[in-house]
Order: sequence, then structure tokens, then C-alpha cells
Amino acid sequence: VTKPSDILMAARPQPHGLGKCVIVMASLAIYLTQVCRNRPRVSVRSGIKLDAKQASRHASCVQSPQNSPRRSRYRGLIGGAQPVDKPGPINMDDSAVMRYVFETNGTEAVEAKKRDFDCYFSSYAYLYHQKEMLQDESRMAAYHGAIMSNPALFRNKTVLDVGAGTGVLSIWASKAGAQKVYAVEYTDMAKFAKRICAYNTPPGAIEVMQGSAEKIELPSRVDVIVSEWMGMFLLRESMLDSLIRVRDRLLKPDGLLFPSTATMLWSLVTAETEHSNASSELNDAIRSWRPFTGTVSSMFGVNLEVLDKEFEDEQISYYMNQSRWVQLTPEDIVGYPMEIKSLDLNTVTLKDVRGVEKARFRFEVESEVNATGFAGWFTTHFPTGPDEAPPVVLSTSPEAGTTHWGQQYFPLREPMHLFAGDIVEGVMDMQRSNQTHRTYMVSATWKVHRAGENASGPPEYSKRWNME
Amino acid sequence: VTKPSDILMAARPQPHGLGKCVIVMASLAIYLTQVCRNRPRVSVRSGIKLDAKQASRHASCVQSPQNSPRRSRYRGLIGGAQPVDKPGPINMDDSAVMRYVFETNGTEAVEAKKRDFDCYFSSYAYLYHQKEMLQDESRMAAYHGAIMSNPALFRNKTVLDVGAGTGVLSIWASKAGAQKVYAVEYTDMAKFAKRICAYNTPPGAIEVMQGSAEKIELPSRVDVIVSEWMGMFLLRESMLDSLIRVRDRLLKPDGLLFPSTATMLWSLVTAETEHSNASSELNDAIRSWRPFTGTVSSMFGVNLEVLDKEFEDEQISYYMNQSRWVQLTPEDIVGYPMEIKSLDLNTVTLKDVRGVEKARFRFEVESEVNATGFAGWFTTHFPTGPDEAPPVVLSTSPEAGTTHWGQQYFPLREPMHLFAGDIVEGVMDMQRSNQTHRTYMVSATWKVHRAGENASGPPEYSKRWNME
Repeated sequence: VTKPSDILMAARPQPHGLGKCVIVMASLAIYLTQVCRNRPRVSVRSGIKLDAKQASRHASCVQSPQNSPRRSRYRGLIGGAQPVDKPGPINMDDSAVMRYVFETNGTEAVEAKKRDFDCYFSSYAYLYHQKEMLQDESRMAAYHGAIMSNPALFRNKTVLDVGAGTGVLSIWASKAGAQKVYAVEYTDMAKFAKRICAYNTPPGAIEVMQGSAEKIELPSRVDVIVSEWMGMFLLRESMLDSLIRVRDRLLKPDGLLFPSTATMLWSLVTAETEHSNASSELNDAIRSWRPFTGTVSSMFGVNLEVLDKEFEDEQISYYMNQSRWVQLTPEDIVGYPMEIKSLDLNTVTLKDVRGVEKARFRFEVESEVNATGFAGWFTTHFPTGPDEAPPVVLSTSPEAGTTHWGQQYFPLREPMHLFAGDIVEGVMDMQRSNQTHRTYMVSATWKVHRAGENASGPPEYSKRWNME
Repeated sequence: VTKPSDILMAARPQPHGLGKCVIVMASLAIYLTQVCRNRPRVSVRSGIKLDAKQASRHASCVQSPQNSPRRSRYRGLIGGAQPVDKPGPINMDDSAVMRYVFETNGTEAVEAKKRDFDCYFSSYAYLYHQKEMLQDESRMAAYHGAIMSNPALFRNKTVLDVGAGTGVLSIWASKAGAQKVYAVEYTDMAKFAKRICAYNTPPGAIEVMQGSAEKIELPSRVDVIVSEWMGMFLLRESMLDSLIRVRDRLLKPDGLLFPSTATMLWSLVTAETEHSNASSELNDAIRSWRPFTGTVSSMFGVNLEVLDKEFEDEQISYYMNQSRWVQLTPEDIVGYPMEIKSLDLNTVTLKDVRGVEKARFRFEVESEVNATGFAGWFTTHFPTGPDEAPPVVLSTSPEAGTTHWGQQYFPLREPMHLFAGDIVEGVMDMQRSNQTHRTYMVSATWKVHRAGENASGPPEYSKRWNME
């Protein structure tokens, strides 16, 4: 720990290719210093005076949404909780909306968008949900560090905060010297943001505007857009679509985006506890069917056994064909994570963010292991200015500690037993769900090249997951 | 236990006023015989050969949805699980749909209804959810008993099964002698119902039709409608609206409905474990706010304390202003449950099922107790014919054992400490939510008349709950 300013850790070179980079860690100060002790190229700066007790308290704030039904209620799309009622055809992607505009007088398209917005934003109207995001110290420290360490990028500038929530990014932008900050928030959280901003900044410094950032009118284009738009595995929630539209309409040609680039990573992982829990729940569910049909048959004279196969398929689909939130540790990673997509947020288009097309991956297995699935996560990177502050990277990698994003885990039905020298090579695709444009489908096809076997030997695997 | 045919228990006279009646119990055969031993007017008929081990296995199938995130996923509207994403303005009541028809060419009304149907029916398309309903032996034994014990009502009749699910009611109607059964199911479960019906009944006996029962066309009106349309506290899900429309269009004037009447009950209850758990979670949540704002303030320079009150209000609303699923025991009931609404399903109108208007209640307290809230549940009653079978009543009362409906619990913020002789007297209202026509709002106003105090003394209480 070198300097008390932020929790920032320069880590080993990242796949996104930045030479000198900074990984923002979670609040696990103790874990952080332990990690750093063993990594000569790591330097840690921490201003958070956390003792062991505090650290553990903070760590306990970030739980798996799967383990917390309470949490699920508030998290909605953010937290990886499965929607109870599938939104079905409520949400529609742009092409569907465009078709509606074409076929009707446009009223329906407006209605469809409003419904999408209302469904999407519902959880963000709760303070409890905002609190969970504000307790994600990787998230907080990254934005705080990126903004507060670069006052030259904010001094006398006009700033737009897209999806302001409680307004903390706006407050930091103001404190960093912005002349004027527009904080746009769709939900009633805007009312609370007004009070928080009024309390924390001088009158007039921040203007909180309730409404859709896609529609909001400003006196002129802005110098900087700050926004925390990232969803699970970066693209879930599809809020980046809104950011792109806002950027094109309201950011000056040479304006800055915080963050400015984003990278999606893909890895082979061994989450054995996760896998054995899911397998055991799956097996219990499947095993429960026969006694159940036996009881219905003997008590009520109806034979349901014609659906044995269908029930099993439904259970396999639920446990093994859905991706889910996990918090992995660095030890769970098999091979070296692959960058599968990198976005320059200044130039990215709506078409670019529809998914990932035919991204190749290749993992070299270092030692014998049971690979139980794949995992996806992301990093985002912030602009740096003449202040010579190191560039800030917000990482949701298992190596960067705990975040509320965690990682998206894509389970295999059966673990692949791999040996040192094996190579797992394939292609992954990710595309928007037809039904709900804020969720995605992911698929992968791969081969295992076993050391010492000839090339024609290895079987081909293929799997498809919902990412709801 | 007198005769091995069904689990049917003649219980003490019920508030719905039927002289001789039958309560269908859950699978708790052991509990059932224990209960009956102490009630001279109770007789039990049971054909389910359950030993203690089997009984406990079956009992464990019926869990609180709150305790089972897995369960929540499938139950949707049925199970009392809170929707993760509030449907917002997606669902709309008839007046809203009518307004749409008026204002547009009708396309939107059709779309709105389709969306409502898709949202509503999503959980019913899962076998896992069907399995849970089929494991509710109160539900199963009631319908099975009511149909199979009254072959005279089914012999050579045409029968319509509204919302057939897996088709079990249709199969029983067929086995009871129906000439033809139409099984109408909206979800893809219809495909499974086809296979189950084909396996369990002769070809042509049952015609499974996939679609909305509100729209289905039949060659002629039917003699009997069987349907399991009941939601939490009877009216939730608003499936009764559909049944009424189908009845008016497709049931012969002198046709029979299974069930034929339904009664809503309201009680003062003492659910102390439930209350202390909720209170303790509420207090933990409220207590967590100050350390959280302290951390945000010291680490990130933003003071959030201006929202202390709003966060507390949000938490109170979540824990104390929402009704929830509980499974109460007879000992939890304070005073004697009141009938607040009784429906004759042959004559009930769409207007009648919009809620409960100004239902008076009066509970006499028998001994000192902490009343922690109110609870609502229902009974439904089936027609009886010349076969002299006792009328079957499906009860979801705490006294009738465990069902997947349980009871809806309406918590008080603080328990009311009551003494023997106290009288709790008031009025309750229940009306459809403005936003989602399948859910309801419940409110109550009441006084406590304390024995020995004059009438002007007691304070007036008033409370309002969401029932989502």
C-alpha cells in the first residue's frame, strides 16, 4: 500500500492491451495486500482505512443474488435474478419497434417503448437497490478515482450523467470542477437525487432532470458524458443502446465518455462447488418425478409417466441451459481468459452491441482439471488526462475481487476432465433474445485437442444458454 | 378413519352455512387422525395408505414460496412470490381495455390482452409448476372426490375443463361417465395434456384444445364446467373473470359448475414467528443504512443522510405493507373467522368479483394474545347429486391442513396486545390494483373495544396492504 488516495491496483498486463493499467479492487483490503505481496508488479494505493472487521462487513454486503430472495426482488435485471414472469413479447428490439412504427401510426411503438422502460427501470426506483450498487466498492472506487483524479478533464466543462440514480457521479463531476452537470434519471429516484445533489453541491451546480435520456433536451451539446450503464457480462440490460443514442445527439464531437472503452472476456472455468450443487439439485428434482407420478396414479388414477422425458428435459434446461451469476476466484480460471469483444465507446454503433459474432477462443490447460463451464465478464476503462493519473480500469474479473456484477457462468451438463497440455478451442456467439431485447442468448462450439492424439480424434461440443 | 375411499373430513359447521359439509384435508394423514380424535363431530374417510415416512415426504413438498427461490421462479402469480419486475402498466383491467378499444381501432386492446395472457400464463407452462399443484392433495382430493363420487352428474354429459393444465380434471370427468370432455388450455401444457389424456382415456373421450377459453368455439353449450381457477385469497389472478365469460357463453342455462360456490374468510391472527422474523429483518435493514451512509460519506465524499426517512419508509412498506403467503395453524387464529364474501358461481357477475366492499368483521378475543395481523383464505364447494355423496368442500383454512394456497397474511406494524373479552371490530375492503388487474389492494379500519372501558375510548386503526 503506497499512497492513501484510492483503492487502485496496477496488476499484471490485461488482455485488453493497455500497457500500464490499474485495476480497481473491491473493499477486501486484506485480501488485496495479500495478493499484492505475491505479485512483484503490483502496487496498491488505498485510502480506505479498513480493518479486518470492517473489510469482512463490507465483503458481506455483496452476496450472491441466488442466495437472497430479498435481494432478488429489488435487483430485477441488474442482479441476475430470474424474472418470475417472463416479460414475453413486452420488450421489443428496435427492428420490432420500427416495424410497429411502419405498420401503425406510431402510437404503439411509443407505448411499447414506454412499457419496456417501465419494466426495465422498476427495480432502480428502490433505495435498497441503489444502496447495493453504492456498496459495490469496485464500482464506486473506479468512477470516483477516474473522475476525481482527472480534474483537468472536468474543470469548467458541461457534463451529462446518463441514468444518474442517486446522483453520485454528478456530484463527483461537480466536485472535480464541472461548470454544469445535467443528471438525467428516468425513475422517481430523480426526486431523491435532487435532494442529495442539493445537499452535497452548491445551488445550480447540478440540474437533475427526470425523464428518458434519449429524449431529454439540453441547451447545447456537452463536453463529457458519465454513465454507469454496464449490465451482466457487459451487454445485458441493453442500456448501452440508450447511451449510444444520447452520445450521437448530445456529446460534442471531441467529447469524452466515462468510461471510454469496454472489453468482454471469456474463460473456461472450474466451478466445482457450483456444479456439484446444481447437479445434486437437478438429480433430486429428476428423482422426485417417479414417486410423484406413482402417488398420482395410485391415489387419483391418472398416469403421468408419459411425460418422464419432458420433465427431465425441463429440469436439465433450468439447471444447465441457463447462465447465472457467480463470484469466482482466480483459482477457478482454466487457461488464460480471452478477449472476445472490445468496444470504443466513442465510435461503437447500435449494430455493434447486438452481441458477439463468432468470437474464437483457445484455452491451454496447465494441469489436470475438471472444467465445469465457461464464464464471461468485462472490464471498462476510463479516460486519462494531463494530470498524469494512471488510467483507471474497472474490472469484474475473478482476479479483481467481488463486484455486484460477479461473473456470468455458463454451465456444462457434465464436467470435462482435462489434462495438462490439452487445448480447448472453439467459437462463441452471443445475440439478443428475440423476445426481450434486454436479454441475450449465448452459444458455443468447441473441440478438445488432447496432447498426443491425432487431430481427427477429438469430439465436437456444442451448447446454447439463455442469459436472462 | 372409517372407510378407505378419499381423504374427506366432516368438520365443525363452517361460516358459509352449509349444514352437513366435508372438508378435504392435505396428505397429513397422521395429523388428520390426531385432529379427529379430539373432535367428536368429525369423521374421516381415507383411502391413501400413507405411513409416517410417506406423510412427512408429502408434507415436505408444500413449502413456503418465500423460503424457496427455486419455487418462486415457477409459481409466478400462483404462489405468492413477488414479481421481480413489476408488470407496471402491462396488465390492464376491463375498463382500461375498453378505453383502448374506444380510442384506437381495437388492435391495442387485443395486444394488451395478449400481453396480459402471456405474462399471466408463463409459469403454468412448466411441468414443475403443474407438479406442485398436483401435489396439493387437498386440491386433488376435493376435485377427485367431487367428480368421482357424483357419476350421476357426469354420465353422458358434455363437460368443459377451463384451464385444463395437465388434464386431470378432464380425465376424472371422463372416468365419471362424461360423453365428451373439452379440455381448454392456453399454454403449451396443452401438448402434454393431449398425451396424458390419450394415455388415460379412450380415443375421442377428451378433446384437448389449445387457446383461450374465452374465445374457444364448441359445437354446442355444455352440461358441466369443471375448473380450478382459484388464486391466493380466492380472487388473485382474476381467472374467475374468464370463467364467468365462458359460463355465460358456453354453459347450458341449467348447467353445473365444479366448484359451484366459493366463500372468502377473514380472521385476526397471531403469527408470532412470522412477525418476529419480519420485524428483525426490517430492523436489520433499517440499522444497515447509517453505517452505509457513513462509509459512502467518508470514502467517497457524498452525504446520503438526507434520505434516512425515505429508506426507512421503503423498508417498512416492503416488510409491513405487503401481504404474503403463510401457512398458519389453527392455534394462530384469534376469535372466530368471518365470512366476508360468498359467491354463487352460477350467478356471480364480473362486477361482483372486482373485490370486497366494506365487509364488516368482529372478533371476540378469548384469551390474552398478541395479534400480529389479519389473514384471508377461502373455501369452495362442489355440487352434489342424487348419489347421496356428502357435499365436498375444498378448504384452505389453517384448520384444514396444508395447501399450496396457504393463507394471505396482512401484517400489522406492531402487534396488538389483546385481553380476554376485547372485541376487535371493523371493516375491510379489497379492490383490484389500478396497475395490474390480476392483483389487489386490501385495506382495513378497526377499533378495539376493551372490556370495562367506555365506548369513546378505543383508538381507530387503519391499514392498507398490497397483495401482489
